[in-house]
Amino acid sequence: MKLPNIKENFADWYNEVIYASELADQSPVRGCIVIRPYGTALWENMKSVLDEKFKQHGVQNALFPLLIPESFLKREAEHIEGFAPELAVVTHAGGKKLEENLVIRPTSETMIHFMFAKWIRSWRDLPLKINQWANVMRWEMRPRAFLRTSEFFWQEGHTAHLTQEEANKMVLDILKEYVDFAENYLAISVITGLKSDAEKFPGADYTYTFESFMPDGKGLQMGTSHLLSQNFAKSFDMKFQDQEGKQSFPYLTSWGVSTRLIGATVMAHGDDKGLVLPPKIAPIQVVIIPILKKDANNQATLDAAYKIKDSLIVKGIRVLVDDNDQQSPGFKFNNWEMKGVPLRIEVGPRDLENGQAIVADRLGMNKEAVVLTNIINYSEALLLKVQKEMFERSKIQQNKMLHKIAKLSEFGPLLDTDGIYIKTGWCKNPACEKELKNFKASTRCLLQTHELVDCFYCGEKSKGDVLVARSY
Amino acid sequence: MKLPNIKENFADWYNEVIYASELADQSPVRGCIVIRPYGTALWENMKSVLDEKFKQHGVQNALFPLLIPESFLKREAEHIEGFAPELAVVTHAGGKKLEENLVIRPTSETMIHFMFAKWIRSWRDLPLKINQWANVMRWEMRPRAFLRTSEFFWQEGHTAHLTQEEANKMVLDILKEYVDFAENYLAISVITGLKSDAEKFPGADYTYTFESFMPDGKGLQMGTSHLLSQNFAKSFDMKFQDQEGKQSFPYLTSWGVSTRLIGATVMAHGDDKGLVLPPKIAPIQVVIIPILKKDANNQATLDAAYKIKDSLIVKGIRVLVDDNDQQSPGFKFNNWEMKGVPLRIEVGPRDLENGQAIVADRLGMNKEAVVLTNIINYSEALLLKVQKEMFERSKIQQNKMLHKIAKLSEFGPLLDTDGIYIKTGWCKNPACEKELKNFKASTRCLLQTHELVDCFYCGEKSKGDVLVARSY
Repeated sequence: MKLPNIKENFADWYNEVIYASELADQSPVRGCIVIRPYGTALWENMKSVLDEKFKQHGVQNALFPLLIPESFLKREAEHIEGFAPELAVVTHAGGKKLEENLVIRPTSETMIHFMFAKWIRSWRDLPLKINQWANVMRWEMRPRAFLRTSEFFWQEGHTAHLTQEEANKMVLDILKEYVDFAENYLAISVITGLKSDAEKFPGADYTYTFESFMPDGKGLQMGTSHLLSQNFAKSFDMKFQDQEGKQSFPYLTSWGVSTRLIGATVMAHGDDKGLVLPPKIAPIQVVIIPILKKDANNQATLDAAYKIKDSLIVKGIRVLVDDNDQQSPGFKFNNWEMKGVPLRIEVGPRDLENGQAIVADRLGMNKEAVVLTNIINYSEALLLKVQKEMFERSKIQQNKMLHKIAKLSEFGPLLDTDGIYIKTGWCKNPACEKELKNFKASTRCLLQTHELVDCFYCGEKSKGDVLVARSY
Repeated sequence: MKLPNIKENFADWYNEVIYASELADQSPVRGCIVIRPYGTALWENMKSVLDEKFKQHGVQNALFPLLIPESFLKREAEHIEGFAPELAVVTHAGGKKLEENLVIRPTSETMIHFMFAKWIRSWRDLPLKINQWANVMRWEMRPRAFLRTSEFFWQEGHTAHLTQEEANKMVLDILKEYVDFAENYLAISVITGLKSDAEKFPGADYTYTFESFMPDGKGLQMGTSHLLSQNFAKSFDMKFQDQEGKQSFPYLTSWGVSTRLIGATVMAHGDDKGLVLPPKIAPIQVVIIPILKKDANNQATLDAAYKIKDSLIVKGIRVLVDDNDQQSPGFKFNNWEMKGVPLRIEVGPRDLENGQAIVADRLGMNKEAVVLTNIINYSEALLLKVQKEMFERSKIQQNKMLHKIAKLSEFGPLLDTDGIYIKTGWCKNPACEKELKNFKASTRCLLQTHELVDCFYCGEKSKGDVLVARSY
């Protein structure tokens, strides 16, 4: 199967590679996809790394109801305003009309805060740090696999703290873990910063985001970490007795990443031949292809392949021998390249005679003859090298796409060009931010720098630099 | 906290121990519970053992949509009849009334079969073996935590095979894994057999069940494995080209276990002091309690506790040091006994002087002084011993409760007595089976034996023995 040219038509390439690589399939329910075994294995690998990271911060997993009473969402005014248009509503159950409608959770702040109010009685119950791996639903009019679907999978962390300082620290600690995950596991370079008021989570005091820029220049919000307003704690009457015996409200955070990270990984690294998966999270890190001859005894070749497999497994490497005897080696090469498996080892009768095998890497598409006695060490080292190179390449690529331009009138029309995003100055007036909509762009995050002196639109003094781009 | 007496009031004991041990909490949505971190950790342990077992049979995980078009369920007549009264229905989404209602999956046969029909084109695509870990919804009028809740968590395996023999084998292979899991991990003795036609899965050719009998004599269906009727494959037009080039339909299986297994584990092993968890799946296998003295330097005690912890972790044992300095040792003992942690190690200054620590086991409530140099080996061996003893105890207990009685008129009234279930003979006429309802009982599973010659009701010839009980 041939994919659309990635440079000429990135959007079509993305849509097709998702299905051709068998990460996902379209489902009969509008806006929802089926995540196939290959995509599910990728997500499970991501989950297990993240889960371990959260546990190191004392976070524990729990499972909360899928359905939330409609009235819960209304308790926090900004929150319901943000989510109301996207809700899926259960009106009937058990053969009867419900007394109160239930919505499928678009996120679980309200449900979890209701429970927090039960569990937090005294300062001794704090901090309380909970995470949930769950499916959520936000009805989507223009779905795109992994990037925007009505149902998606994610983790949502929810914590409660005695002091605002401690809550701030939690928000930033998790952000740091997210960045480490993006850069050192997904091999995607990211930029962190605060969201503007217009772009932050409905009802949050502030939202930190980590953003990445795809090869077409569009920004992709990889995940967010929020300090919630005290209003959340108050609307669920989350009172507790503090150390002085006074009634007090805790400071709340929430933070999440989703299956969107699969989409990011596909876009950040893919090429004309398909996916290129970072070794650390690839479901299969090494595929071994025995070169089988028609009408011949292939046992020695197969044995050599299985032997390499066993040695790689001992090293903790995820490996598969493709011993299908109905498909040609060439067909298999294409298939596993499409699926982005980092390394391929070819073993044929002639290689074995020479005491070697061929190792090909998906990233550089190089082939190397390696003596069999060295093949395990070679593969192990190459996986590490590829992981590192993928991140370096992502960093260089994103730096190249960044353009520092002072005026919207100048950079606005350029946003139609592929592969461009903008650093500019902003006065922080929401009215100026709204002007970006004329170019289908938005602020992605506020930066700590102050290189541009004037606002991109009104020309007043800039209060700091901001990244502007179209986005997914 | 004191629990109701387990012998005198098993039902109340169960309801309270679930909450007192913090496995779960009540939620504001009728019929749904919150699974708290302790219960979630227990479920995650169960999941990881089962997941590994499924993978050994070539089963791969995938993720399918939560919502199913109402019309899908209607394609298989028995299927919709079985599930219609329990459905939760989404009628509105994205601010609009939907053109077709969507139901929250009560199980995913129909959705997964729709996808199977896309994926299975040729005999080369078979067997196809998929599993999904998911939340499902069956609206429940009389909910009980873990046993019957509107939303619950489970795995559902779905496979397609070229021949009926292969499908039969899959059904039985998985049943065998389930039994191994129940007996060797949950330490619960189970009995397997076919369900009667009235009790089988809606639309199945046959259903194998594995059943356990709780201390009150009630049967608990632990999980099931089905061969589905060809009607499922036909109603989703799941045609493929077989080896002779002819159009053919695959043979389908499905099988599942759920968070109900948590309820089973609680009931099968608990006592007046709370949970008793089998070591292999206990979230915490060993709790270490340093005996801290008020206004003293406790560093040596704490250091000793942490040292034991580190040595246990090296052995792969899940361990926690309860170093809270606000609670008394006695309070902690009760708390961890309530939570059913298999082993407790107490280390106090006097123990340390004697070069020993106290090891207490939750099952037998024995205490033993063990020299520190031997404590790791001792604990490891004791965990294994406890695991084995729990299963033996379960087997003995269930055997004791089994009564072989020929006539419903005789055993029917006895079912009001706690701790009784019945082996009897049955002619396989559904009319006789219905008579059991007068005693709130049902057939639990058909046995391979034929010890009783007459039917329990009509007196005609029995076609085989059957287990009868009240059930959860």
